[in-house]
Amino acid sequence: MPTQLEPELKSPTAKGAARRAMLVEAAATFVARNGSRGTSLAQIAKAAGVSQAGLIYHFHTKEELLHAALDLRDEAEEYLAWSEEENPGLAALDIIATAIGNWSKQPSHVGMHTVLVAENAAQRGTAMHARLTTKYQAGVSQLAAALVQAQQAGDVRQDLDPRHKAMEILAFIHGLETAWLMDPKMPVKVIAKQWLVDQKAALRPQ
Amino acid sequence: MPTQLEPELKSPTAKGAARRAMLVEAAATFVARNGSRGTSLAQIAKAAGVSQAGLIYHFHTKEELLHAALDLRDEAEEYLAWSEEENPGLAALDIIATAIGNWSKQPSHVGMHTVLVAENAAQRGTAMHARLTTKYQAGVSQLAAALVQAQQAGDVRQDLDPRHKAMEILAFIHGLETAWLMDPKMPVKVIAKQWLVDQKAALRPQ
Repeated sequence: MPTQLEPELKSPTAKGAARRAMLVEAAATFVARNGSRGTSLAQIAKAAGVSQAGLIYHFHTKEELLHAALDLRDEAEEYLAWSEEENPGLAALDIIATAIGNWSKQPSHVGMHTVLVAENAAQRGTAMHARLTTKYQAGVSQLAAALVQAQQAGDVRQDLDPRHKAMEILAFIHGLETAWLMDPKMPVKVIAKQWLVDQKAALRPQ
Repeated sequence: MPTQLEPELKSPTAKGAARRAMLVEAAATFVARNGSRGTSLAQIAKAAGVSQAGLIYHFHTKEELLHAALDLRDEAEEYLAWSEEENPGLAALDIIATAIGNWSKQPSHVGMHTVLVAENAAQRGTAMHARLTTKYQAGVSQLAAALVQAQQAGDVRQDLDPRHKAMEILAFIHGLETAWLMDPKMPVKVIAKQWLVDQKAALRPQ
């Protein structure tokens, strides 16, 4: 019932969760626009309508807030994770194309991720670099495993190197994120659709 | 003759040019590592062995120095520009794969470009955003023109949308740049080679 969503009826826990969500959303928006170094906690608190003390209560540092924002992004990106039993094989490519089509539902999170990757790509030794690198490598492994399964099922040519193809695909996804951040009118859904058709044509056994 | 390269024999113009080159190189290295906001003119001057007054003599602002660094990168990237007469058609893809294989000759410039694109992607209204966007759009148009020519020559399927394919290819290049900045041991040359074979297989008329 709609009345249950009225602020005054929310429990303290629900209020806290809503406040955290607003802070994470504001952080993602600012980082996507100005980079993490160009974003202050004061800006984020103000945009979320939360006091600075309130922000610090939920997130002790900017780093902590960025990790929380990336956690959300990772959850949304679970399309690139599967167990051995549910390995999608060649359908992994369909899953990716669909996910690209859904970017417009969370544009600030896609943008924040793009900017953080670029800001931290060469910052070896930091916690953020380690996190992003680990996530990237996990993505390569997951995707390569799906391509291996597709080879075993006879859906993909035997001479393909699954890890190199996985790296190519992740590069395409990341580069498209960046281009889309630069021009939000870019038809990423249509581009992903043509990409999917072409990949399948290239991967199929001759 | 090697002696002509000795510093003491250089003309003032040659000395100035060498100093400019060192400043541009230092700027590219720092920006690739720490981002443009995380890089100071003092750092760049020190790394280049030039006084701050000397730096300001050559480049009045950080922005001016970044543009000079991008000018160099653009020159190296001329592989994506051709006149109507010399349009390479499908060979544009070979040119791209070769260029990726050459990244290791100028790693700091590739890294700087990646970081600047991400930093400025959402900064609509700035001179840097305008420059990078214009360059990107020119790249899309050049590559799309090559694909149109390849279609006319019968080398590429008629049902392909050349602009969307061009956007896909540029996304792949940019994403690969970023992944390579994150992990310089990545075999970008080998990945580009497999990419080239697969693209040609997907694009060929059925």
